[in-house]
Amino acid sequence: MEHSILPSNLEGYGGIRAYSTEASQTIRNKVLADIDAAFSACDIRDGAILSFHHHLRNGDGVLNMVLAVAEKRGLKDIHVAASSIFAIHEPLVGHIQRRTVTGISAGFISGPVAEAISRGMLDKPATLYTHGGRARAIESRELSIDVAFVAAPAADMSGNVSGTAGPRACGTMGYPKADVAAARHVVAVTDTLMAYPVPQIEIDQQAVDWVVEVSSIGDAAGILSGTTKPTTEPLGLEIAHRTAALIEASGLMVPGFSLQNGAGGISIATASALATRMTQTGVKGSFASGGITGFHVKMLENDLFEALLDVQCFDLAAVESYAKNPRHQGISASVYASPSRRGAVVDMLDAVVLGAAEIDIDFNVNVTTRADGTIIGGSGGHADTAAGAKLTIITTRLTAAGFPKIVDRIGTVTTPGETVDVLVTEAGIAVNPKRTDLVERLRTTDLPLCNIEDLRVQAAAASERQPTHSKGERVVAVSEYRDGSVTDVVRQI
Amino acid sequence: MEHSILPSNLEGYGGIRAYSTEASQTIRNKVLADIDAAFSACDIRDGAILSFHHHLRNGDGVLNMVLAVAEKRGLKDIHVAASSIFAIHEPLVGHIQRRTVTGISAGFISGPVAEAISRGMLDKPATLYTHGGRARAIESRELSIDVAFVAAPAADMSGNVSGTAGPRACGTMGYPKADVAAARHVVAVTDTLMAYPVPQIEIDQQAVDWVVEVSSIGDAAGILSGTTKPTTEPLGLEIAHRTAALIEASGLMVPGFSLQNGAGGISIATASALATRMTQTGVKGSFASGGITGFHVKMLENDLFEALLDVQCFDLAAVESYAKNPRHQGISASVYASPSRRGAVVDMLDAVVLGAAEIDIDFNVNVTTRADGTIIGGSGGHADTAAGAKLTIITTRLTAAGFPKIVDRIGTVTTPGETVDVLVTEAGIAVNPKRTDLVERLRTTDLPLCNIEDLRVQAAAASERQPTHSKGERVVAVSEYRDGSVTDVVRQI
Repeated sequence: MEHSILPSNLEGYGGIRAYSTEASQTIRNKVLADIDAAFSACDIRDGAILSFHHHLRNGDGVLNMVLAVAEKRGLKDIHVAASSIFAIHEPLVGHIQRRTVTGISAGFISGPVAEAISRGMLDKPATLYTHGGRARAIESRELSIDVAFVAAPAADMSGNVSGTAGPRACGTMGYPKADVAAARHVVAVTDTLMAYPVPQIEIDQQAVDWVVEVSSIGDAAGILSGTTKPTTEPLGLEIAHRTAALIEASGLMVPGFSLQNGAGGISIATASALATRMTQTGVKGSFASGGITGFHVKMLENDLFEALLDVQCFDLAAVESYAKNPRHQGISASVYASPSRRGAVVDMLDAVVLGAAEIDIDFNVNVTTRADGTIIGGSGGHADTAAGAKLTIITTRLTAAGFPKIVDRIGTVTTPGETVDVLVTEAGIAVNPKRTDLVERLRTTDLPLCNIEDLRVQAAAASERQPTHSKGERVVAVSEYRDGSVTDVVRQI
Repeated sequence: MEHSILPSNLEGYGGIRAYSTEASQTIRNKVLADIDAAFSACDIRDGAILSFHHHLRNGDGVLNMVLAVAEKRGLKDIHVAASSIFAIHEPLVGHIQRRTVTGISAGFISGPVAEAISRGMLDKPATLYTHGGRARAIESRELSIDVAFVAAPAADMSGNVSGTAGPRACGTMGYPKADVAAARHVVAVTDTLMAYPVPQIEIDQQAVDWVVEVSSIGDAAGILSGTTKPTTEPLGLEIAHRTAALIEASGLMVPGFSLQNGAGGISIATASALATRMTQTGVKGSFASGGITGFHVKMLENDLFEALLDVQCFDLAAVESYAKNPRHQGISASVYASPSRRGAVVDMLDAVVLGAAEIDIDFNVNVTTRADGTIIGGSGGHADTAAGAKLTIITTRLTAAGFPKIVDRIGTVTTPGETVDVLVTEAGIAVNPKRTDLVERLRTTDLPLCNIEDLRVQAAAASERQPTHSKGERVVAVSEYRDGSVTDVVRQI
């Protein structure tokens, strides 16, 4: 192209670089031969921080595949920055032993990896984030990801990723979004390479550097439970009905009501009881959030909620709904739960129903370690929703496996008691004394209110064993609050 | 909360800041009284760079509202970074005269503001970006936005924005996405403040600082044309049919075919002719991209395309389709057209059908200035799609308003000729000689091939007037290519 004469510099604009024949660096086909090639393309070296997400849950095959390559390449000191780690990630224990991996951070760690960390096998203390805190740490570059590996149910050669196509469709993909936005390199690993463009792009090509096709990204059976169902067990049902009655009595179950509850039997039974009451009273809620189940989908379809704000589909009914219903909206982990000034979905919650491994008489909750001090999870969204919701309810039985669940001192503080409002057990309901307004309101109902100390005494009396918690000196994990402060440390067992 | 004793520092983790009572900075309700309050909240000062998007097109009321406040506050030297500027933004001329505004950048500028710039009224040269180049400039912070104002058809008090609700629904909102991700502050201006959460969140609350409710964000009549229709004018129809025949003869109209065409009558007539041929031959395409019309929606619904990749809805049928059909996908300007290494939708285009104000015998195209040198537009997606598509077709008549359209030297180089493959006119089809493969292929057809020089001669003969182009010395605008280099400058008229 011949130019008219261009000035070399222009006041109010700056230096002018004349156009010359475009030598586009654009990569149309990002498909690499295998994960090993992705390690080369991303120049992954000793000490790299690699991120993973858990939408494939206990069926995820991608984390194991990637770390096997790291080991084969003789890499050392890899930091695994996962949104969650499950039993299926057991091979990670070997990588820790051989020092391929020396650092781990996640929102939730269970199974053999949690055991290995608890026994002091990992060089550096693991970091246990809340889901929102993890997004905050990534977005602030406090956790500076080198390469984000995305387990992609479907992808095209340009790197667009879909969660709703392929044999291992997982629906919404809220967890890797902060990772792919911040990581230096992004690799989509898929078993379903489709023609451009994939349907319902969840992560777009501008976020993805490379695509690797593998035979399978995981075990579909581990990814999604068939159907999530309410408990039918009498004690659990009683707790659920009390919880629903409590929410109604709190005055929050009015038009625009919003709810988060887990996928456990008691949680779903609580939602089921609420659904019945909402239908009877004609209350239409605004949204349900968090991990979404077929039960929430039914509530949406029955017009009990205006919207679902879904960070992760928990079952196939949720995946199918997400694929077809525009009112079933996907949200990123950051939008879901980040403690940033701009606020998150959790801040708009009226009620959240959560579980506990242990709770103390100041309402501090442990969902991180079990009675013997072994890591069994971590906050995930627990501390985030507790901080955000107007009414945070912990439901639990007095005892489990012979251990008391209401105790003087919990093994690990996951969620600060000042963000917890009520404890519902089969033996009674204890309201956090700081919620004087709620105490006042519930006093006029026939709900069985009591003091949390009474519940602790009853739990102790009903127990056969005492929690030992961890005894070691060495710190094996740090429980980070959503803002990056530390609620507790976990010591070696 | 009482802590177990926390170490102050931990090897392999770092310093520990113990959790203390959460003092959340989260703002649940971001609604400010008015735009003036938003100026205070965002601390907008002299010289600020304010960004705007053009999904409300010639019905947009937000840019004018915001600049009226800037002027009332006595601000000077504001840089208006708009995705496009239309006739409705005429009040901007006054702001320029009074030096409230001294800098303008946009992907497209028409109407009184374009006239004013052409007459040298603006202090600094305006920058004319391509749509993809603008996203690139914003993402690289080359264009460093202080405050992005989002004209929001609907928003909630937490700042989630929807394009599919409210009386001025515009559908997809691809243009402001780079702006809101990069801007220091983001303000959503809406006339439809809805209960949390808005349906089909287009821009989420994590991207938005403040929300301002106004009585109207614009004039619905200017936002969307009723229905976009193919031309019925014989010369235009002839060009359209030739273009369709050319695309078919090029060998690209095979399964997986992708297309972009504008909303002009000839463009739609071309797509219409292609739709007929695709139906007859049973070819199913992959996608149509860019600005989407009801005509594309029909092609999608008739299964002629697998997907629509929509950066901006051009009519109500497109808005309605976007709200209900998951195969009608929204894309950001960056995903649409950015020249980044990760590639954009335009790179995957088979054929694009574009217009021209002028084209020279090296196939360089001007869509920036008219025959007298006055600014009438700019690239928008013109140069982006030309660079990306396998087959870039310019359609034009030989003359318009008595001026020749095929000329020796065009007024302004918007799109480099080396990215243009074919010119289709009523007098014949000229193939860019560098496309020897295409020349070879078309030689066997009965398409009326000719030399572009012949078309120039015929155009000159058929013209009553000669373009004057601009005569001034002073540069009033810079035409930037997608990579930030400069294709041309525009001089004062």
